[in-house]
Amino acid sequence: MTRTMKELADFLGCPCEGDGAVPVSGVASTVSASAEDLIYVESVQHLERAAASASKCVVIAPGLSLNGKVLLRADKPKLAFARAAEWLLPAEPIAKGIHPTAIIAKSAQITAGVSVGPYAVIEEDVQLGAGTEIGAFCFVGRGSIVGKACRFYPRVTLYAGTSVENHVIIHSGTVIGSDGFGFVSENGKYRKFPQVGEVEIGDNVEIGANTTIDRGSLDRTVISSGVKLDNLVHVAHNVNIGENTVIAAQTGISGSSVIGKSVIIGGQVGIADHCEVRDGAVVGAQAGIPTGKIIRGGGVVWGTPARSLEKFKEQFAWLSRLPELAERIKKLENIVSSKDK
Amino acid sequence: MTRTMKELADFLGCPCEGDGAVPVSGVASTVSASAEDLIYVESVQHLERAAASASKCVVIAPGLSLNGKVLLRADKPKLAFARAAEWLLPAEPIAKGIHPTAIIAKSAQITAGVSVGPYAVIEEDVQLGAGTEIGAFCFVGRGSIVGKACRFYPRVTLYAGTSVENHVIIHSGTVIGSDGFGFVSENGKYRKFPQVGEVEIGDNVEIGANTTIDRGSLDRTVISSGVKLDNLVHVAHNVNIGENTVIAAQTGISGSSVIGKSVIIGGQVGIADHCEVRDGAVVGAQAGIPTGKIIRGGGVVWGTPARSLEKFKEQFAWLSRLPELAERIKKLENIVSSKDK
Amino acid sequence: MTRTMKELADFLGCPCEGDGAVPVSGVASTVSASAEDLIYVESVQHLERAAASASKCVVIAPGLSLNGKVLLRADKPKLAFARAAEWLLPAEPIAKGIHPTAIIAKSAQITAGVSVGPYAVIEEDVQLGAGTEIGAFCFVGRGSIVGKACRFYPRVTLYAGTSVENHVIIHSGTVIGSDGFGFVSENGKYRKFPQVGEVEIGDNVEIGANTTIDRGSLDRTVISSGVKLDNLVHVAHNVNIGENTVIAAQTGISGSSVIGKSVIIGGQVGIADHCEVRDGAVVGAQAGIPTGKIIRGGGVVWGTPARSLEKFKEQFAWLSRLPELAERIKKLENIVSSKDK
Repeated sequence: MTRTMKELADFLGCPCEGDGAVPVSGVASTVSASAEDLIYVESVQHLERAAASASKCVVIAPGLSLNGKVLLRADKPKLAFARAAEWLLPAEPIAKGIHPTAIIAKSAQITAGVSVGPYAVIEEDVQLGAGTEIGAFCFVGRGSIVGKACRFYPRVTLYAGTSVENHVIIHSGTVIGSDGFGFVSENGKYRKFPQVGEVEIGDNVEIGANTTIDRGSLDRTVISSGVKLDNLVHVAHNVNIGENTVIAAQTGISGSSVIGKSVIIGGQVGIADHCEVRDGAVVGAQAGIPTGKIIRGGGVVWGTPARSLEKFKEQFAWLSRLPELAERIKKLENIVSSKDK
Repeated sequence: MTRTMKELADFLGCPCEGDGAVPVSGVASTVSASAEDLIYVESVQHLERAAASASKCVVIAPGLSLNGKVLLRADKPKLAFARAAEWLLPAEPIAKGIHPTAIIAKSAQITAGVSVGPYAVIEEDVQLGAGTEIGAFCFVGRGSIVGKACRFYPRVTLYAGTSVENHVIIHSGTVIGSDGFGFVSENGKYRKFPQVGEVEIGDNVEIGANTTIDRGSLDRTVISSGVKLDNLVHVAHNVNIGENTVIAAQTGISGSSVIGKSVIIGGQVGIADHCEVRDGAVVGAQAGIPTGKIIRGGGVVWGTPARSLEKFKEQFAWLSRLPELAERIKKLENIVSSKDK
Repeated sequence: MTRTMKELADFLGCPCEGDGAVPVSGVASTVSASAEDLIYVESVQHLERAAASASKCVVIAPGLSLNGKVLLRADKPKLAFARAAEWLLPAEPIAKGIHPTAIIAKSAQITAGVSVGPYAVIEEDVQLGAGTEIGAFCFVGRGSIVGKACRFYPRVTLYAGTSVENHVIIHSGTVIGSDGFGFVSENGKYRKFPQVGEVEIGDNVEIGANTTIDRGSLDRTVISSGVKLDNLVHVAHNVNIGENTVIAAQTGISGSSVIGKSVIIGGQVGIADHCEVRDGAVVGAQAGIPTGKIIRGGGVVWGTPARSLEKFKEQFAWLSRLPELAERIKKLENIVSSKDK
């Protein structure tokens, strides 16, 4: 959608410096931008690249300046840029209307304005809220309830009984509600422990591609509002993830662990069962948190087994110094033994 | 299905203490149970929560007691509870009958009582055994043979020539029989090494969501009876996994490794190629087993490179003591040098 | 396809020793081979197994010999074997013709000779090059361009705007072009940073099952020609992978990292954002490369944080020697303190 810089400034609520009539129709990096693409500059070291960019349209931090561009002045240029992008480039539709090949159970309640793509399957008693778009090949199992304005890309699977609030984005290949990994030993074999709980997903959650979230065994697996999960993440049965927590790719969380609010978890982290990672904690990439461990609120942990970042760095530094320590021990031994003689 | 506690006691073969006419219709945790839900109590510390539960129906370990409940006395309450759950809550059907949109090759042999969901594709010469249910969007490739009473959730892919025994459960998004990762170097590029083996899966195997099992390159990849694989597990070409082994989420096993029987492998473990993990071994979460390494039967290993749990703990403890050791070296140096003067 | 050993020798350009009229129709391991299956022998320790094999047809390294077999003499037997396999066993078709249930947008340009399997969805303005085969349930999003002779197994998803060159193989469940994991903090919540770039895939790339490749945020994610990615690999937004690089299963590469040409990356490696792994480097399995780190060309790194293999081995050896060092410190303390008395 093409707008003027003045219109964009009004939308963002920032002052516009320069010709407000200049058109702006997209967003881009400084390198790939055309004249009508918005770019952003947060700090002085990005000024040169921005100056060289073909873009005429810049969101820029206070105190910086650029000749020959129209500037929108914002305290947080990256945030303003993200808001501008949403406004200029509304998300492309995933589906348009109800495709004739979609199989929708009679008992499903499809609100007006819902779109369902080709070959999607919507089972009995499902509810889909207004404006929700369900991509091709999605499977929404019996009794699942999906709120408003959700976007499921092609090939999302919701097992029966999953509930999803509003404005939730789920990427392709993700599976929600599969059975948890729970077995009871019986004469050297394993018998399935019941996996009859469900999955609850809050508002404004985004889930990446090929991620898996298991249903609770007896109770629920909960992904609270504002949570962002990357690709190939594994969330086991009965896990509870608090609001606005972000979890990077390939991290796995084992059964019944509780992750607090506003936690940041890096990629390939492993969290064993029955752990607690409290509000605001940060868990570094590839860290491993052993069974039952508590990570305190606001703590920053690293390594396997996870310890404070400070301690991890210290231990790692000591590890590097081992040859030197050994050398010093040898020297002492030589001195001491020579005195013995 | 609603039964009486007496009927359940008879099914489980345990004594019933209290009013055997009390109805029982499901299973639950102590917190979420209604009066008719069965709960279980294994030890004295769970008695209080069980007493507070709305449930009237309890499987309980010998020597424990609870007022106002009907008690089923079992040596292994969790196992009895799992058996009760199976009996009270038979698995919901994944598909009912052959859906008219399922595409089934004429040469496929579909035994009576098989169900195939919407938009599933069953290729030439496939065999499906009695009572097997194939979910929506499943793909069963040419010549694959699937036994009796298997349950494939929506979106399972079997490449051509896969064989699966009876009572196998496979969750959504799992891919079985994809080409192994094998290449031969040729003038700085890679040429595909043939990946023409197959995958064989035994009885009573359960495989989680979005797991991948590659076909053998020249021979077979084998998943023996009773094996349980969690979500997002990777099994490479020619791997052989022995009976009743369990492997937690996001673990990867490289080409030609042999895993014994009744092995327990934690999450995010990496096993390089041509390893042997012998019967009854335990591999801790995130451990890394280097190429060609043998883990002895019954051994417990941890860390990367994997070593015995004992050794891992010892080394880790020493790592923590390094600052202290350095301090002691310094002290010695001071003493020795002061004597030199 | 059945050929004679003489014909195969001519195809490979190697001398044939023995009866060139002997038929050869497949490839196999020494154990599973029938008389007509080709096997290969690279070194003297494989001679015994080859001699015992039912196979009559052997590609063999210079200087080795076997009685009673027809021998093709090749400097690189494994490479010759791979070439023979391609010739004897052309890949089975993934789809034959355009299946009537495939949904193909009118604006899509489908070159003659393209095959599209059942229930595939090809959106507006897609281009598919000659000889390309698209499996069942594949989704090729709006405006994606796929070259010649590509093979997409069932259930591959290409988001809109993906471009794929020629002779590319993609296995089931893989998702290409999903949104990158980029958010901007806003009052304690996360707002989506635009993910409007695309994915570009070169010639002769092979991608395993259930792998995910995110689109660029503002620019492109690039997988260069000759790259081989295993199963369950994660490639984040803006990553650039150079030609002929191979990456084993479950490895994850974070945003904007640049991987050079002919790099070898083991399984379960984690590469943080904005790293550079230069041409010819080797990264050991489970290694972790921290944010912004550069791995020099040709370097071999191991561990987390990744260091040179040499250093890793040295440090690990020292870790094992800690009890001994502590013992020596104690001894020194005893000697020194006894002298004090």
